[in-house]
Amino acid sequence: MKFGGTSVATVERIRNVARHVKRELDAGYQVAVVVSAMSGETNKLVAFAKDAAALHDLREYDAIVASGELVTAGLLAIVLQDMGIKARSWQGWQIPIETNDAHGAARIEAIDGARLMHGFEAGEVAIIAGFQGVHLPSGRVTTLGRGGSDTSAVAVAAAIKAERCDIYTDVDGVYTTDPRIVPKARRLDRVAFEEMLEMASMGAKVLQVRSVEVAMVHKIPTYVRSSFDDPANPGLGTLICDEENIMESQIITGIAFSRDEAQITLRKVADKPGVAAAIFMPLAEANINVDMIIQVVSDDAASTDITFTVPSADYEKARQLLEKDHDKIGYASLQGATDVVKVSAIGVGMRSHAGIAAKAFKALAEKGVNIRAITTSEIKFSVLIDEAYTELAVRTLHSLYGLDAKG
Amino acid sequence: MKFGGTSVATVERIRNVARHVKRELDAGYQVAVVVSAMSGETNKLVAFAKDAAALHDLREYDAIVASGELVTAGLLAIVLQDMGIKARSWQGWQIPIETNDAHGAARIEAIDGARLMHGFEAGEVAIIAGFQGVHLPSGRVTTLGRGGSDTSAVAVAAAIKAERCDIYTDVDGVYTTDPRIVPKARRLDRVAFEEMLEMASMGAKVLQVRSVEVAMVHKIPTYVRSSFDDPANPGLGTLICDEENIMESQIITGIAFSRDEAQITLRKVADKPGVAAAIFMPLAEANINVDMIIQVVSDDAASTDITFTVPSADYEKARQLLEKDHDKIGYASLQGATDVVKVSAIGVGMRSHAGIAAKAFKALAEKGVNIRAITTSEIKFSVLIDEAYTELAVRTLHSLYGLDAKG
Repeated sequence: MKFGGTSVATVERIRNVARHVKRELDAGYQVAVVVSAMSGETNKLVAFAKDAAALHDLREYDAIVASGELVTAGLLAIVLQDMGIKARSWQGWQIPIETNDAHGAARIEAIDGARLMHGFEAGEVAIIAGFQGVHLPSGRVTTLGRGGSDTSAVAVAAAIKAERCDIYTDVDGVYTTDPRIVPKARRLDRVAFEEMLEMASMGAKVLQVRSVEVAMVHKIPTYVRSSFDDPANPGLGTLICDEENIMESQIITGIAFSRDEAQITLRKVADKPGVAAAIFMPLAEANINVDMIIQVVSDDAASTDITFTVPSADYEKARQLLEKDHDKIGYASLQGATDVVKVSAIGVGMRSHAGIAAKAFKALAEKGVNIRAITTSEIKFSVLIDEAYTELAVRTLHSLYGLDAKG
Repeated sequence: MKFGGTSVATVERIRNVARHVKRELDAGYQVAVVVSAMSGETNKLVAFAKDAAALHDLREYDAIVASGELVTAGLLAIVLQDMGIKARSWQGWQIPIETNDAHGAARIEAIDGARLMHGFEAGEVAIIAGFQGVHLPSGRVTTLGRGGSDTSAVAVAAAIKAERCDIYTDVDGVYTTDPRIVPKARRLDRVAFEEMLEMASMGAKVLQVRSVEVAMVHKIPTYVRSSFDDPANPGLGTLICDEENIMESQIITGIAFSRDEAQITLRKVADKPGVAAAIFMPLAEANINVDMIIQVVSDDAASTDITFTVPSADYEKARQLLEKDHDKIGYASLQGATDVVKVSAIGVGMRSHAGIAAKAFKALAEKGVNIRAITTSEIKFSVLIDEAYTELAVRTLHSLYGLDAKG
């Protein structure tokens, strides 16, 4: 069971978390609980570190920001004990949760489940501080990056060979799309790991992408559930599981969108070998993720227009790099747009169905939505459109693929 | 160097701490720094634990409340690095600072200085989270109790064979008495360990008693200094050192007082063997510290009146125990008073001078101060008086022993 920051924001809410834990114990389970810091705490600690120095030592940053989870882990242990339940808190280094030394965004390398298992045998609930680990042999505390507690939870579940991993959040599951945009969005009972990966990376911020990767690799059935449900009678949430455990998969499972995109178009790029490398290598070296790329022959036929997208946050940096290399690349003009959005339709059923995307292009065209770029993968296709059309496009696709709730 | 909670209350103050550290580095020292949590943080964490459950598991309490020091240790490391100084933070378990398992009030058993020394050789300042340690082999985090960071500092100083230990507080040294009561109180340049022990245990809350014990045992010269001094030009503070390093010791070094006293008098106790045990054994078993004891033969000569003091906090418990044992002890009545104060004069010079206390009794009598009880030790005498006379008595003794500042 994993509980995020809003679920443990106060001692009163931690008591509610304890009731959820008790329900699972009463159902006969041995339970490990991963907790985040109280909401707001990690932000406060990050602000302290930034205030101390703009360019800080990430080893020290980690030592500072990993402290919030220690508090909630201890408090939940105390609350459970007060309910007559044996429990103890575990700090990352005590288990240990071993990571590499990429401080600030460390990756879990190994979790020794032996001590936890020993606790289970003694009838003890294990309360684990999320988001953190330790780099051996340096013995320094590491953190897994934002949302890392989800990854902690799934990785611990794998280490102790858990039957399932329940991620409690402030939403009651994964939806076919953002319900704030499409009131007819439905909670999904089941989503395949691959689908969830695409949704998570598209900004459906229910689960951290890496946690889904870990769940997929180790085949840990993972529930997304609400911590605000009545502990005595909780909702089912959404089960993220292996594709083969989803009996009747839809062709399209969900519609995701990301506003965190910017478009760059280079006009009249000389159509010669090596030009793509001249454009994209410097961006790659600057750690800028280029996503959609389209190339269109321009009117004069001797040159092409190249359009691609980068994360909004990297837009200015990308422009500057390309302008610096203007002569090397050789292009007539650079055009950019940040008021664009990427809308994606995701579903493992696409693999066995042809023409899914074409249907979408037609529907969007009929609504007057201009498509700036398209990318497709085995289980997803995405279109880049003007941001103003976001809601219209999402609703159109949501209806088109039969995702609207009935009645 | 040790800095308390008010000295690290904000990032700006931590920057000031860093300037103090830099001054010592510039003077050619290798430096270890022990820090407390930001002021208010530990209280906040303690309140969380109390809110979670009235009777909490002290192992979890320790895991929670030890987290505040991790934050300040990391922040100071970052600030020093930003000034171009090599530094790293150390959590109690990383060194390790090994303690017993008396969670909440653990005692340091051993500190391995090897890793810290290794850091010094690499030109690194060691920033150590105070107040905490680890119990091996359980691997659980422990805390040393309130004010424990002072003890951490002196113990680390001993482990790394430091030339001296500087405790930075919000006062600029140890005074002959409380300056709020006696404006003519003077800062002492030097105080003997034994004297400081008496002053610390009497509520002159500059240093934790245990830290003075550790300093005395390991003969660590310890300065009490102000963290609010100009880092470029700090005051000298007070050096707590071996008696033999104090050339011209005063007969009396300081006047301390404690309002945390309560008096109990048992009237007409049968004067028979075993009666003292009947009174004091149950109190000892209840962990109640009995301090001053006087016994006076009562008018009928077949019985005695027994008066003694206990800490105010234990007064009610002590009364109840004595009333419960009324028949076993056999006394006519029990009288109590909580509006009493213990005033003490402390000085290693008392050893070689007779009649010091007698002089005080005379001076107090002349001012109309009624003495309820007296105790004396080799380097201290104390009188128990009505609380209303506190200031008068302290000022009288302060003048009597020539402690008033000149001019």
